Amino acid sequence: MERKRYNAKRPIDYLKDSLNQIILIKVKRNRLFRGRLEGFDEHLNLYLEETSQIFEFQDESGNINEENEDLGSIVVRGDNVIFVNLASD
Amino acid sequence: MERKRYNAKRPIDYLKDSLNQIILIKVKRNRLFRGRLEGFDEHLNLYLEETSQIFEFQDESGNINEENEDLGSIVVRGDNVIFVNLASD
Amino acid sequence: MERKRYNAKRPIDYLKDSLNQIILIKVKRNRLFRGRLEGFDEHLNLYLEETSQIFEFQDESGNINEENEDLGSIVVRGDNVIFVNLASD
Amino acid sequence: MERKRYNAKRPIDYLKDSLNQIILIKVKRNRLFRGRLEGFDEHLNLYLEETSQIFEFQDESGNINEENEDLGSIVVRGDNVIFVNLASD
Amino acid sequence: MERKRYNAKRPIDYLKDSLNQIILIKVKRNRLFRGRLEGFDEHLNLYLEETSQIFEFQDESGNINEENEDLGSIVVRGDNVIFVNLASD
Amino acid sequence: MERKRYNAKRPIDYLKDSLNQIILIKVKRNRLFRGRLEGFDEHLNLYLEETSQIFEFQDESGNINEENEDLGSIVVRGDNVIFVNLASD
Amino acid sequence: MERKRYNAKRPIDYLKDSLNQIILIKVKRNRLFRGRLEGFDEHLNLYLEETSQIFEFQDESGNINEENEDLGSIVVRGDNVIFVNLASD
Repeated sequence: MERKRYNAKRPIDYLKDSLNQIILIKVKRNRLFRGRLEGFDEHLNLYLEETSQIFEFQDESGNINEENEDLGSIVVRGDNVIFVNLASD
Repeated sequence: MERKRYNAKRPIDYLKDSLNQIILIKVKRNRLFRGRLEGFDEHLNLYLEETSQIFEFQDESGNINEENEDLGSIVVRGDNVIFVNLASD
Repeated sequence: MERKRYNAKRPIDYLKDSLNQIILIKVKRNRLFRGRLEGFDEHLNLYLEETSQIFEFQDESGNINEENEDLGSIVVRGDNVIFVNLASD
Repeated sequence: MERKRYNAKRPIDYLKDSLNQIILIKVKRNRLFRGRLEGFDEHLNLYLEETSQIFEFQDESGNINEENEDLGSIVVRGDNVIFVNLASD
Repeated sequence: MERKRYNAKRPIDYLKDSLNQIILIKVKRNRLFRGRLEGFDEHLNLYLEETSQIFEFQDESGNINEENEDLGSIVVRGDNVIFVNLASD
Repeated sequence: MERKRYNAKRPIDYLKDSLNQIILIKVKRNRLFRGRLEGFDEHLNLYLEETSQIFEFQDESGNINEENEDLGSIVVRGDNVIFVNLASD
Repeated sequence: MERKRYNAKRPIDYLKDSLNQIILIKVKRNRLFRGRLEGFDEHLNLYLEETSQIFEFQDESGNINEENEDLGSIVVRGDNVIFVNLASD
């Protein structure tokens, strides 16, 4: 059987389309970051600027609020990433 | 003993048949995503569009309901994936 | 000392004998799948058709029952697999 | 400093001596298997025939008993293995 | 489809800009280090001088205080790193 | 900058000096083995003979006692090892 | 974009400066070792002599005391290491 070639773009190729744009990164141990993607590699290591870590909590009325901590520029090690939520056009 | 060649398709080859179709992805830490598969690679990194994360819960009558959170386009890092439920034809 | 050659078949070679047959897959986090093996690779990534996930529970009389959820075709990422129970001839 | 050559056999070489013999395999998450070793590779993936999974429990008198579940032929993924107890001659 | 080249800098390239500067490192198991970055590699192994480990705690008035333990020069193994907070210019 | 050569022996080289001698192996999930080292490789896979697993417990007087379970010959998969306590000369 | 060369020393290079000196090693699962560094490799596998494992505990007055267990010569598998605290000159 001949080995098929994939014509589909690789997931990592799609990150390129979000360069210089705001993305959300869901990380293990329930962390959530929002920042501007300025660099990445094939391990899903990410470099973000103007990043904030988002803490979601429920207030007394049951509404979900978020609090942000400004982090500035961070390098996230790829093996912590669960998924990256890309910028919508 | 001569090393056998596998005539069977590799699991990753079957993902190709689900490109542009809706799949379910079961992820570690009890996460469930539904989205349209638009890209993947050999690590099982996945690129999905029109994705929603599905939260299943039991209501008071004991029925299982689901709530969805729309995520848009996401890149899932492959090492989080337990299994991918392919589109049925 | 000269390095011995193994004449034994590799574990992965035995999976070939179960192609197109029903196997059981025990997966981390206490998951159990039953399905027809249609593809695999050296990472123990598996492609199964007509798969059901099996939930075992004890009823009031202490008997062990199982409930099945039909999943259809799935790709299991190999690093989740504890062991594969091959089809008996 | 010159790099020493190891004259010692590699651990994996010793598995060869146990081919076609009964071994015990202690696996993560407290699993114990007993079976006849018919295949292995350098990742410590193991192929066993006439395998039983052993459940040890303490009875009311404080004695340790075991219950066995027959599994037949299984492929154990090597990264689950803690240690293999080789056949004594 | 032709494979795109990434013009974006890799995340690891950005660490270079923080050499000889104070950075924060968030590490698994809730550890936080502050130190002067004097060396790193592609695994995100880091060499820091004048490092202190930071322990954050809430006092009786609900304010978050930190206590520091001076560690001097340390080598952090990269696989423990969640993210590195780079020096702001 | 020119890359330094390490004149220091590699940790694995020191295992060679303990061949045919009794060593202690501390393994994840709080396991402790004592046995005669007869083989090892670069992954720290170990082959031991006349091995016993050691269970330490505190008796009613607060003294720490140990109980041993004889295991004979075992192959320990290296990724379970925390440290190896070498034979003292 | 041209790929930058790093002029910074790699973290592993700094370990060389601590050869034959006393270092502290913080290991996963809350273990702490103190010993004389006599060998290491690129995985951060470490060979230490005159090692003691340090147990820290709080006494009744709230002071932190330590108890030491002498281990002699040990090989620590690198993937357990969180950080190495180098000898200060």
